[in-house]
Amino acid sequence: MTTKLRIVPLGGLGEIGKNMTVIEYGDEIIIVDAGIMFPENDMLGIDLIIPDYNYILDKSDNILAVLITHGHEDHVGALSHLMREIDAPIYATRLTAGLIEGKLRQAKLQHDVSLRTIEASDVLHIGAFTVEPFHVAHSIPDGVGYGITTPVGLIVHTGDYKFDHTPVDGWPPDFAKLAEFSNRGVLCLLADSTNADRPGWTQSETVITDAFDELFRQAEGRIIVATFASLISRIQQVANAADLYGRKLAITGRSMRDNSKIARKLGYLDIPDDLLIDISQANSLPPEKVAILVTGSQGEPTAVLGRLANGRHPKLSIEEGDTVVLSAHPIPGNEEMIYRIINRLLQRGANVLHEGIANVHVSGHASQEEMKLLINLVKPKFFVPIHGELRHLQAHGRLAQEMGIREENISVVENGTILELEEHSLTIGPRIPGGYVFVDGIGVGDVGPAVMRDRERLADSGFFIAVISLEIDGRLVEQPEIISRGFVYLEEAEEIMEGARETIAQTIGASGRNRDKIDKRIENALSRYLYTETGRRPMVYAIVK
Amino acid sequence: MTTKLRIVPLGGLGEIGKNMTVIEYGDEIIIVDAGIMFPENDMLGIDLIIPDYNYILDKSDNILAVLITHGHEDHVGALSHLMREIDAPIYATRLTAGLIEGKLRQAKLQHDVSLRTIEASDVLHIGAFTVEPFHVAHSIPDGVGYGITTPVGLIVHTGDYKFDHTPVDGWPPDFAKLAEFSNRGVLCLLADSTNADRPGWTQSETVITDAFDELFRQAEGRIIVATFASLISRIQQVANAADLYGRKLAITGRSMRDNSKIARKLGYLDIPDDLLIDISQANSLPPEKVAILVTGSQGEPTAVLGRLANGRHPKLSIEEGDTVVLSAHPIPGNEEMIYRIINRLLQRGANVLHEGIANVHVSGHASQEEMKLLINLVKPKFFVPIHGELRHLQAHGRLAQEMGIREENISVVENGTILELEEHSLTIGPRIPGGYVFVDGIGVGDVGPAVMRDRERLADSGFFIAVISLEIDGRLVEQPEIISRGFVYLEEAEEIMEGARETIAQTIGASGRNRDKIDKRIENALSRYLYTETGRRPMVYAIVK
Repeated sequence: MTTKLRIVPLGGLGEIGKNMTVIEYGDEIIIVDAGIMFPENDMLGIDLIIPDYNYILDKSDNILAVLITHGHEDHVGALSHLMREIDAPIYATRLTAGLIEGKLRQAKLQHDVSLRTIEASDVLHIGAFTVEPFHVAHSIPDGVGYGITTPVGLIVHTGDYKFDHTPVDGWPPDFAKLAEFSNRGVLCLLADSTNADRPGWTQSETVITDAFDELFRQAEGRIIVATFASLISRIQQVANAADLYGRKLAITGRSMRDNSKIARKLGYLDIPDDLLIDISQANSLPPEKVAILVTGSQGEPTAVLGRLANGRHPKLSIEEGDTVVLSAHPIPGNEEMIYRIINRLLQRGANVLHEGIANVHVSGHASQEEMKLLINLVKPKFFVPIHGELRHLQAHGRLAQEMGIREENISVVENGTILELEEHSLTIGPRIPGGYVFVDGIGVGDVGPAVMRDRERLADSGFFIAVISLEIDGRLVEQPEIISRGFVYLEEAEEIMEGARETIAQTIGASGRNRDKIDKRIENALSRYLYTETGRRPMVYAIVK
Repeated sequence: MTTKLRIVPLGGLGEIGKNMTVIEYGDEIIIVDAGIMFPENDMLGIDLIIPDYNYILDKSDNILAVLITHGHEDHVGALSHLMREIDAPIYATRLTAGLIEGKLRQAKLQHDVSLRTIEASDVLHIGAFTVEPFHVAHSIPDGVGYGITTPVGLIVHTGDYKFDHTPVDGWPPDFAKLAEFSNRGVLCLLADSTNADRPGWTQSETVITDAFDELFRQAEGRIIVATFASLISRIQQVANAADLYGRKLAITGRSMRDNSKIARKLGYLDIPDDLLIDISQANSLPPEKVAILVTGSQGEPTAVLGRLANGRHPKLSIEEGDTVVLSAHPIPGNEEMIYRIINRLLQRGANVLHEGIANVHVSGHASQEEMKLLINLVKPKFFVPIHGELRHLQAHGRLAQEMGIREENISVVENGTILELEEHSLTIGPRIPGGYVFVDGIGVGDVGPAVMRDRERLADSGFFIAVISLEIDGRLVEQPEIISRGFVYLEEAEEIMEGARETIAQTIGASGRNRDKIDKRIENALSRYLYTETGRRPMVYAIVK
């Protein structure tokens, strides 16, 4: 019996194989990426979501390496959780390693984890695997995909990529390496599906340069640009435009400051010292001499742009004549918040430019024509679309079929599905239990469906608790004490409180000396009364003493 | 002193003048529309939002008429609230009146309200106003705008419109009437701004016919189309395609069934009896003989499509080979839910078509080229963009300026701003207090910011309540009783409960016989303890008996 190679896309939510992919041969495992997802709107109180990686913890001694493709949160954010559990080195390119280092330090793990810096041309021998990182273009510099030669054949994992011929950092993707893999024969391609429903070719990052050029030439007041803190090339473009048009640049928002500091230190961001000012200096310069980079392009109310929109930033306020640029694409679910912020910025007199009305953002992911090019370059025998929701993976799968890959050689699967790869077959194995894990505060995985349902109910109608003291003979000692929040505005609901007390008294009166389940009976009567009066169903509890 | 005409866009949320516009001259008031808005994702527990119309209730005797433009919820949904408060007739075209009648009956108001059916060519004399409804094309039939001749001049209110030359009902907008208004001289134009950021011309509803034709020709399994219940023309298109390709049609979802019943009865929907089947019959026909119209195109989990996606519909389940069409545009804020439903439908083996990948929906609102045509047709002296968020109104205002209307003759204002119009001036008056009113269950306006903040907090971390009985000497009578929901999964949090009880005991112990504010001291100690242990901040209460 030959051993099969197992490929398991893991974790996250919605997107498949985005946050983590496990590659397993015999008793040797390598992991590609360890990222987080952000919660959806109805995941109340949840801070972030990590993949459920119990599958590998059961055999954590087998893990030989964690290969990282690039420094975005959805690819590195779970390292601070994962690395507490396993003992394997992390491999990452220089900028990515720099960003990871900060994370490990925050998690107080920097001394316990081996972080190995690699280059895009390296050849790493890790157990039964030969790992060859290759350079890709994406919306953060120094991204790589991985060619992984395994005992059953060569597999290629793209990471996040686009075929940008003119990236801002001047380093186009490594087409030659892909062609070389192809010459050697690629058994299986795992490829980024994010934009599988977008026809055409994703525009180059440099088209933004023209848009910023025009903007900086024309704007008369301050220019405030919000973008992702990790979009180092966009930061570079804004810095270049500021320099060219005689504006000083302030970078604000913790994550953006941290990232640009690391990127500058490592040489991935070229900003002269004298171009930069502190945000507190911005107010003392004439508006036409100031550009400001801020966080909050996804509408987050506590990030800098959100605070500016709501007039709650300690050092800066939006003024008539400011130009605000949202240089980012709304992640689904964030549209409402983003539009709200845009409207508030307009209210304050700013001129607001965003992707919907101006050419101020391009995607970091390949569109359909690039996907076709990739498949034609790599010519894989088997194809596994990853990185995207099921709808994207299916579209990518159809595309691969149109490119001549046979339907039975394409596997569209969900997170946790074990794919078994041999030289002549790709089969779908069992699905491992689990999915993703909620992180709330310090707690990891202690908030499950029951707690979420309670939060939903509390969010909907609040709670109503009556504390009732009864005499031994069943009479009320005193008026019940009522605590209620999130249900009605108590100060204007005296009538309802009065009715609730009466309902309690009646239920007790009707019970005589029978105290059996008196609390449940009071709760039922109260629930009915409150629903009749308000049409709402708060959580109701009666505590009888 | 001449009397000024007052125009006040009211209510709703986000969009301006969408749900209600007040037109006031001296002591005579007419109202255009009375609609609702649906709550945003972070308005926890709120069912719907109505305009704050206190401004007119203070002078409700002056209200002469409520003019309705068309039968969509955001234009008629608040009538069941408003008509309890005022005593004025509603004017609406036949289909719109039919839809309103159902609403009034539900609200048990049908005998108290005068509902007058009008036609698009009528001339109504209402107090000092001459009101001329004119036909517009929109995504529901029988829509009108209003020409209103006032003592200061003629104002034109477009309602929701698009310049569709080939609408499904064969009744194009009344260009001649707009030209006639223009000949008479239009003092002020109030126009729909919804798509002010979309270049070009909105496609005709009939382009959908081709897409459905192709779909019905090719699909081998059942065809399930989700759209807005009020999109009568889309329902007609699906019925036509079903008829043409030999499929029976089931219409399901309460609002869609109700609306099609009314539209069929009034002759706005032409569906032969023998085409229709009940949803329960759908399962006994071969898949290729079945088409089903369903509600839930906005991702609502309790509507039909949501239940199908989650496998929770009592009579129908998605099968391999079904084609599901989402024939609707996501309202901002609903994207996440819609994509989740699409992914679940794909999981169940359906083929899913939506606006993003196929030509299965067009907007019901004018785009920029139509807006330009409108302004050129009407040639107003003053221009007030309405219907849209501030960002749309500003874009529409800029467009009007490009069309030659002077900047000072354009007023972009927010809800509640009083516009004062005279023959030679349009000035921005005071802004009336208020905004919108939350409806939650039966309660109207009783859920304000304080209750919302509590719900946010409860949604985030739940509550934690300790009921503590003390002896007269300050000792604990028994172990405190703890009720907590939405905080941690209690059955696995015995350690935290133990720690909480200890915290309570320590606080009491440290207080001796001093019971002054003992509850507050316990609450503070508990909050600190729980935050340290979990990183969460539930609402904490201590009830000391």
